[in-house]
Amino acid sequence: MSSDATGIFINETHTDAAIWQYRVAKMILEGKTQYQTYQIAEVPRFGKSLFLDYNIQTSILDEYVFHECMSQPAMTLHPNPKKVVVCGGGEGATLREALKHNTVTEAHMIDIDEELVDMVKEHMPEWHQGAFNDPRTNLLHMDARQWLVDHKGANFDVILSDLPNPHEEGPGQMLFTKEYFQIAADALGEDGVFAMQAGSANENYPECMACCIKTLESMDCFKHVAGYYGIVTTFFQPWGFVLASKKHDPMSLNVEEIAARFASRGVTNRYYTPRFHNAVFTLPEWMLEATKNARILTDAEPFVWTA
Amino acid sequence: MSSDATGIFINETHTDAAIWQYRVAKMILEGKTQYQTYQIAEVPRFGKSLFLDYNIQTSILDEYVFHECMSQPAMTLHPNPKKVVVCGGGEGATLREALKHNTVTEAHMIDIDEELVDMVKEHMPEWHQGAFNDPRTNLLHMDARQWLVDHKGANFDVILSDLPNPHEEGPGQMLFTKEYFQIAADALGEDGVFAMQAGSANENYPECMACCIKTLESMDCFKHVAGYYGIVTTFFQPWGFVLASKKHDPMSLNVEEIAARFASRGVTNRYYTPRFHNAVFTLPEWMLEATKNARILTDAEPFVWTA
Amino acid sequence: MSSDATGIFINETHTDAAIWQYRVAKMILEGKTQYQTYQIAEVPRFGKSLFLDYNIQTSILDEYVFHECMSQPAMTLHPNPKKVVVCGGGEGATLREALKHNTVTEAHMIDIDEELVDMVKEHMPEWHQGAFNDPRTNLLHMDARQWLVDHKGANFDVILSDLPNPHEEGPGQMLFTKEYFQIAADALGEDGVFAMQAGSANENYPECMACCIKTLESMDCFKHVAGYYGIVTTFFQPWGFVLASKKHDPMSLNVEEIAARFASRGVTNRYYTPRFHNAVFTLPEWMLEATKNARILTDAEPFVWTA
Amino acid sequence: MSSDATGIFINETHTDAAIWQYRVAKMILEGKTQYQTYQIAEVPRFGKSLFLDYNIQTSILDEYVFHECMSQPAMTLHPNPKKVVVCGGGEGATLREALKHNTVTEAHMIDIDEELVDMVKEHMPEWHQGAFNDPRTNLLHMDARQWLVDHKGANFDVILSDLPNPHEEGPGQMLFTKEYFQIAADALGEDGVFAMQAGSANENYPECMACCIKTLESMDCFKHVAGYYGIVTTFFQPWGFVLASKKHDPMSLNVEEIAARFASRGVTNRYYTPRFHNAVFTLPEWMLEATKNARILTDAEPFVWTA
Repeated sequence: MSSDATGIFINETHTDAAIWQYRVAKMILEGKTQYQTYQIAEVPRFGKSLFLDYNIQTSILDEYVFHECMSQPAMTLHPNPKKVVVCGGGEGATLREALKHNTVTEAHMIDIDEELVDMVKEHMPEWHQGAFNDPRTNLLHMDARQWLVDHKGANFDVILSDLPNPHEEGPGQMLFTKEYFQIAADALGEDGVFAMQAGSANENYPECMACCIKTLESMDCFKHVAGYYGIVTTFFQPWGFVLASKKHDPMSLNVEEIAARFASRGVTNRYYTPRFHNAVFTLPEWMLEATKNARILTDAEPFVWTA
Repeated sequence: MSSDATGIFINETHTDAAIWQYRVAKMILEGKTQYQTYQIAEVPRFGKSLFLDYNIQTSILDEYVFHECMSQPAMTLHPNPKKVVVCGGGEGATLREALKHNTVTEAHMIDIDEELVDMVKEHMPEWHQGAFNDPRTNLLHMDARQWLVDHKGANFDVILSDLPNPHEEGPGQMLFTKEYFQIAADALGEDGVFAMQAGSANENYPECMACCIKTLESMDCFKHVAGYYGIVTTFFQPWGFVLASKKHDPMSLNVEEIAARFASRGVTNRYYTPRFHNAVFTLPEWMLEATKNARILTDAEPFVWTA
Repeated sequence: MSSDATGIFINETHTDAAIWQYRVAKMILEGKTQYQTYQIAEVPRFGKSLFLDYNIQTSILDEYVFHECMSQPAMTLHPNPKKVVVCGGGEGATLREALKHNTVTEAHMIDIDEELVDMVKEHMPEWHQGAFNDPRTNLLHMDARQWLVDHKGANFDVILSDLPNPHEEGPGQMLFTKEYFQIAADALGEDGVFAMQAGSANENYPECMACCIKTLESMDCFKHVAGYYGIVTTFFQPWGFVLASKKHDPMSLNVEEIAARFASRGVTNRYYTPRFHNAVFTLPEWMLEATKNARILTDAEPFVWTA
Repeated sequence: MSSDATGIFINETHTDAAIWQYRVAKMILEGKTQYQTYQIAEVPRFGKSLFLDYNIQTSILDEYVFHECMSQPAMTLHPNPKKVVVCGGGEGATLREALKHNTVTEAHMIDIDEELVDMVKEHMPEWHQGAFNDPRTNLLHMDARQWLVDHKGANFDVILSDLPNPHEEGPGQMLFTKEYFQIAADALGEDGVFAMQAGSANENYPECMACCIKTLESMDCFKHVAGYYGIVTTFFQPWGFVLASKKHDPMSLNVEEIAARFASRGVTNRYYTPRFHNAVFTLPEWMLEATKNARILTDAEPFVWTA
């Protein structure tokens, strides 16, 4: 082992199947907000990493994979994204990705945890890269769902739902339901595109993502729904996302069109490149199977995240 | 947690970054051969699983992902695979996959660990599914490299190299080198296709796979070399493979052609389906980058697997 | 590390301070009764060991320490122990220790878990050493507290309470209370001696033992109460016991008297030897302090064991 | 679990038998010296704790147990300890304990790791409690063995050897040998007393302590040699020490004499109290057995600490 082979670990439970001990080469910062505890730590081979409530959230190695997946397919699909909303998105990197598109004129980020975002501003500049200071940015700290309710009919172009997993009675639980998705739809314009992080895309735990796909597919307001995934090394699993679009079909985009949009909007990606579009939208059979067997998530019967 | 939430774990070290504790719901069988220790254990959400030297090898949940990737792209690419060789492949599932192709007339499996294969025959029937008893099968227990040397000019159609990672001074180390690949090439016919498992495809540890690609690309005998990967949930990472072909280009196969070959040969897959061919061969940028920076592996300077 | 350095562990939580991963060199037997799960496993340096609900109970290395402490001080203090009761004591080793005293004419063991005792009879002969077949033994499977209620006035000489820790709503919780101790007292004769396992004697978790001492000291029926401990390597801590005696004072015994009693009764010990009597009864200051601050345990407010 | 139930751990290997995961409630300080890495961390139920190379060294809960054992028996045995030497003793707490005796006129502490001691001075005042500033203290940073060689014939009264375990080729290895003990003897006066920390006193790993006892017993210069131990909760085991005395017999001290010496010298202890003297010097049978089977440690064949 290298000189990074310390004896310090942060233990994360992954379903019933495993506990993952992430090695800490160096503890950089620890703290607690009203909503969660956090650690910034150096992890060997991952580099600077953020843990929330002792679950890894992101590492400098591949934060770009998660955040490009979170933003770029939806942003790219919209023919002219001007008004964008990021729900959650604490590190500011989803916002950063949206702002890459020079079509954007206003970007609202609604994250309830002000203390965490303040910490991120100071200690995680590699993530936001100045996005919080972009003149197009409007940063607010309140409940994202309520904010969308208050902006019904606002005709947003893209809504990016970068929210915590729906742990039992956790802050994310009512943000993975049909009612929430409808609220988002009602705040989108007629070309509107919604995208969300939807949990694991792994074969041992596809249920959450499958239910999100099923629920969005059940809604008339979204004409096109497509699950996709990114290989997030830091999470030790492929991570799932769902895109729901009122008008435009993500599968109608070809390599040339994507490349053209990137070029005209000044976008360069490292993971969601034009040639990789089809790969991220090609789900393994297990996810298709799980979606068949999935149920519709509602406020009354939301998803309960395991471990 | 479910009633499977025991306190028993098998700990596997994953690079310097992490230790993974796989939970054991039930220990089914433990033993030791001349070459390795083994456990068959029930793991929650993975089911029946095999561990060798305390590293997970395969689980009933998704053994099909690994073994289809190990066999199917190479078998499918060859226009008429009759004579097949599996190097290693203890569980018999790579053999099983090769035998799915009804074109096959002889399948040689060369695995040095006879005790392990004997155990597998009795205790892991879900994996081999009778492949060891197929009349086309020729099972041998000796060094696979030496066997290939002895079969120079044998004009095999497909060689599948399902061998242990190249741990320092381990049995796999001289089976990830240019010299070994040349020996394989010399035993293949002019349409011959070689495929190998090549280690992690993850962004935090792409080096082994990248060096395998680079090494095979450096060899004149193989006209087409392509890395590909399968999402192996059981390994908590995408797993890498490399295909090297003397004549036929894997990227020349389209969905219809693959479907036609499957139909005519009686093949049905669950992971490597026709529609998924392009997805498995589309490598993330990090693997392309790593390959640029990779080196050629030789007997004198083999790859040294970390952790 | 030795060849025992496997990657298999049983994880036990020790208060909030630590998780202990006991290494399993070999899993010998696993099972489940109506009351608990069990594993018999080979642990390096400890040898054959029993785990109940994934907490280590005993190992062949030093089961004698625990079981001599559980039985010998009380048995030795009684001038002529004939009628003995073991409450709990699944492995049969507390019984075995009591039967060492050739004064004993009847030994009742009341353990509610018949399936576990049946398993022990067959698979843990090193513990019981035939004690279950001793003609003086009367083995019953029912609630020990109820059995003692039913034997009020039976004039037993010694009652040994070898029961599980008082986990919240667990089977042991009402067996660490003043009411239970009174029931025991009522079943003892006038020379009667009661002894119990009382949890950790460690400085980071002395509360349970301290409360047991305090509770027994508060009862008029016991004239002499003394905490003592054994160094149980297998538990990674000194383990606490409490002796409560109606008439005889354990501190009145000197080395010569103990040696004489051992000789006349045919007793040989490895831990509780005559010279060691004073050492086991000399509690560290922290336990004396904790006892001052302890409370009286009742059925209404029992002890709640942590982790 | 309490609010201290974080997911951060420092993992320490304890022989082949176990890995202990100490929970970190808060990481206070991390660093590295020329000789070792260190962490100061808050551990639930242990409080502020020091880890060196990821092994726990001391916690505020019971550092007094270790440090009183390290100093007080030897200091108390000497009829008039004036000149004292501490070899090692980084935290300054062994020094602090020695200085409690108002007979002391000079106390030399020889610890090779200046960076660590500098850190301790600033960040661990609860340990040294100003001892480094005591006018009687002479703090030096060099090899303790060499310093003692240079002080042959210095007629020191007490030498306290508080040194790291003899890991293979580690800095402590040549400080657990007969040659080193002879050097210490040669620096002591005719009433001189030597004491050392000697490793675990546990039944599963008594070998190091047993060899230290055996080696010191083999030397004519020490008329009285006695092993003793303290229950160090923080180490999850009783910890062993050996006292070797040129003239005075530790077993000749009785409660009254010890109390009188404490009174006249202004000493108050929490663990090594007069009534506890006999208890600490009463070794379990396993240590007596291990000592019979132990070997003499020499520079040529030193002890090799396991894990």
